[in-house]
Amino acid sequence: MKNTVYLTRKAEFSASHYYHNPALSPEENRRLFGKCNNLNGHGHNYTLEVTVAGEIDPTTGFVLDLKKLKEVLNREVLEVFDHRHLNKEVPEFANQIPTTENIAIAIWRRLETKLNGAKMYRVRVYETPDLFVDFYGEP
Amino acid sequence: MKNTVYLTRKAEFSASHYYHNPALSPEENRRLFGKCNNLNGHGHNYTLEVTVAGEIDPTTGFVLDLKKLKEVLNREVLEVFDHRHLNKEVPEFANQIPTTENIAIAIWRRLETKLNGAKMYRVRVYETPDLFVDFYGEP
Amino acid sequence: MKNTVYLTRKAEFSASHYYHNPALSPEENRRLFGKCNNLNGHGHNYTLEVTVAGEIDPTTGFVLDLKKLKEVLNREVLEVFDHRHLNKEVPEFANQIPTTENIAIAIWRRLETKLNGAKMYRVRVYETPDLFVDFYGEP
Amino acid sequence: MKNTVYLTRKAEFSASHYYHNPALSPEENRRLFGKCNNLNGHGHNYTLEVTVAGEIDPTTGFVLDLKKLKEVLNREVLEVFDHRHLNKEVPEFANQIPTTENIAIAIWRRLETKLNGAKMYRVRVYETPDLFVDFYGEP
Amino acid sequence: MKNTVYLTRKAEFSASHYYHNPALSPEENRRLFGKCNNLNGHGHNYTLEVTVAGEIDPTTGFVLDLKKLKEVLNREVLEVFDHRHLNKEVPEFANQIPTTENIAIAIWRRLETKLNGAKMYRVRVYETPDLFVDFYGEP
Amino acid sequence: MKNTVYLTRKAEFSASHYYHNPALSPEENRRLFGKCNNLNGHGHNYTLEVTVAGEIDPTTGFVLDLKKLKEVLNREVLEVFDHRHLNKEVPEFANQIPTTENIAIAIWRRLETKLNGAKMYRVRVYETPDLFVDFYGEP
Repeated sequence: MKNTVYLTRKAEFSASHYYHNPALSPEENRRLFGKCNNLNGHGHNYTLEVTVAGEIDPTTGFVLDLKKLKEVLNREVLEVFDHRHLNKEVPEFANQIPTTENIAIAIWRRLETKLNGAKMYRVRVYETPDLFVDFYGEP
Repeated sequence: MKNTVYLTRKAEFSASHYYHNPALSPEENRRLFGKCNNLNGHGHNYTLEVTVAGEIDPTTGFVLDLKKLKEVLNREVLEVFDHRHLNKEVPEFANQIPTTENIAIAIWRRLETKLNGAKMYRVRVYETPDLFVDFYGEP
Repeated sequence: MKNTVYLTRKAEFSASHYYHNPALSPEENRRLFGKCNNLNGHGHNYTLEVTVAGEIDPTTGFVLDLKKLKEVLNREVLEVFDHRHLNKEVPEFANQIPTTENIAIAIWRRLETKLNGAKMYRVRVYETPDLFVDFYGEP
Repeated sequence: MKNTVYLTRKAEFSASHYYHNPALSPEENRRLFGKCNNLNGHGHNYTLEVTVAGEIDPTTGFVLDLKKLKEVLNREVLEVFDHRHLNKEVPEFANQIPTTENIAIAIWRRLETKLNGAKMYRVRVYETPDLFVDFYGEP
Repeated sequence: MKNTVYLTRKAEFSASHYYHNPALSPEENRRLFGKCNNLNGHGHNYTLEVTVAGEIDPTTGFVLDLKKLKEVLNREVLEVFDHRHLNKEVPEFANQIPTTENIAIAIWRRLETKLNGAKMYRVRVYETPDLFVDFYGEP
Repeated sequence: MKNTVYLTRKAEFSASHYYHNPALSPEENRRLFGKCNNLNGHGHNYTLEVTVAGEIDPTTGFVLDLKKLKEVLNREVLEVFDHRHLNKEVPEFANQIPTTENIAIAIWRRLETKLNGAKMYRVRVYETPDLFVDFYGEP
């Protein structure tokens, strides 16, 4: 690719979750997950960064139409995750623990085929300002 | 008071909540609270700022011993609110909606008599970086 | 007022401006305003904080309906200021220099009578993260 | 290279711009660029991150003399871009739309040969805190 | 005063300090100050906010000439505090512990008579992003 | 590796340092290091980001147990660097200048064999919010 640039858009969503593996005993869950194992749930303001890679379209100066990127982010991610309980309401987490790691992969898979031909490069998810996960897709 | 200074300490906690008034109909709850009315709960990384006012102790140069302030914040607020579901686990919200406004007042009341004689000046609670509430106590 | 709380909402807008007083000579304008006097204009991402004061409504736990506050901010401020040239497109600055000081007062006046009975307490405008102005209204 | 480290310096500049492609109709410009097409211009506080890569000089412990890097950034970028109208005053944008993508490439080209032998690794430009572009040079 | 506005400017300085009261025993110093009592010193990136209050000058739209404010801040504070050891090099701390509280008062006193007639309203000093002190002057 | 994710944890420490090469003359030290050459020392709030890479453990949804990572960071880095004078108290800097570049490498070496089999990917050290260094290990 010639003169690839990488464009990143941030978005926020607020959600609840808890960590619990039903294949393990309550004691083992408590030991592994500590206060995140509270089944009443707790929550975060997640920050999402989506990075796409591409060449600049000389007509617009854009890698990607930002209005379309915003629409895709809203429809595929924010409407599904924002103000939701991840364990109870987001299908990917019916059988999978909603850790930051698994959230990053779930968001990648929701977005990667919806970008009008632009190439997904990275998904970053911050659970708090001090903890974040990057996913660059399957090799 | 002579040469009053105001010292502020920040702390964070992550919690779930929802907004629901049982005296109102489901439709009215939905209209008033929108997506915050989802009874599965959603969550936030709350940021708390506690401000105390006082004169400087010439022996230490401090208004207040910061280690003691940290202990009080941990015991009275963070252990009660962090990784909790506010509606289900924090007593103040058994019969009161856990809005940012009510959270700020609840924290003020938990702290105001525990500060070893220092004077509470303000409690600020951020629900997100774009929304916060200040409470300065009862007149 | 009993148990007043102060609620603050942030918003952003991006705008152009320049500083120029037509009653002064070009040299005097250049001396007073430096590179801000460039008549081609330059711009900023302004951050606005609007603080309202009030008692909590026991039915909702709110001082003010946040959806209504957002609508008022959008209609009265953001649609007028965002992606605009302040000197050329915002009426308050046809005959007044759009300094951060004057912007804060202009936003106060646009908002103070539109808050459904809530009381405006403060308008804060950041021109950059390192420079901001607070206005608390006329005495 | 042995023990390469990557050093990043941030800087800010405030500028105006608009998006307009004179080869297209006014309607098409409006459709593609929305409110960015306002020919009066609007502006941003841009944040620039310049990353250089190199081995550490054992005499100084530095990859690069930071005072020299600051001088180069000031002379080659900030004096040209800060408090300017990008479309009207920066030569690269006489015939090219000053999108964040094109700004990142323009800054790379201004800096890459001026670094006293250090190697440019990345230019990042934030248009707002929620939108940024990375450029790593031509392949 | 009519239509008072409050203008705040931020600045940063990096300095070393330690906490030690020579009138107390080593054990008492250790108990009161913990790891801050390490006599080798430790350091911080301090952030300073200086707020001045005044009416807007209709000729300029300014409360205060920002270039002059910057000069005063540089001369009276930054040249004295930045890249210095507060206990050893700043006169106020020859006989006083350089806590954030005492730093805020020292900066207030250095600035209050140097502002060309503008009125100092507040000095805020952040020792870290999570701890800050406000001083509003003597009553 | 299949489906590698990258997890980053931030931590802070406050330390003093100065820049001085005893093999050079005082004049040459002053010329190279400017105000950082002040032998009384100055200090910073350093921010550290440690990134580890790995596959997700399906039992926990984690790349790495965050409690163990925190313990390792505290024991290997924070207890050694926080509230210390880097030149006088941290062994790596007895014979090496504690620049941000050298700090990043020292932290990498302290951590890389202590991660319970997880793979260190990157160490980032911010000296100030505007200056940071990345190190990705030896090739």
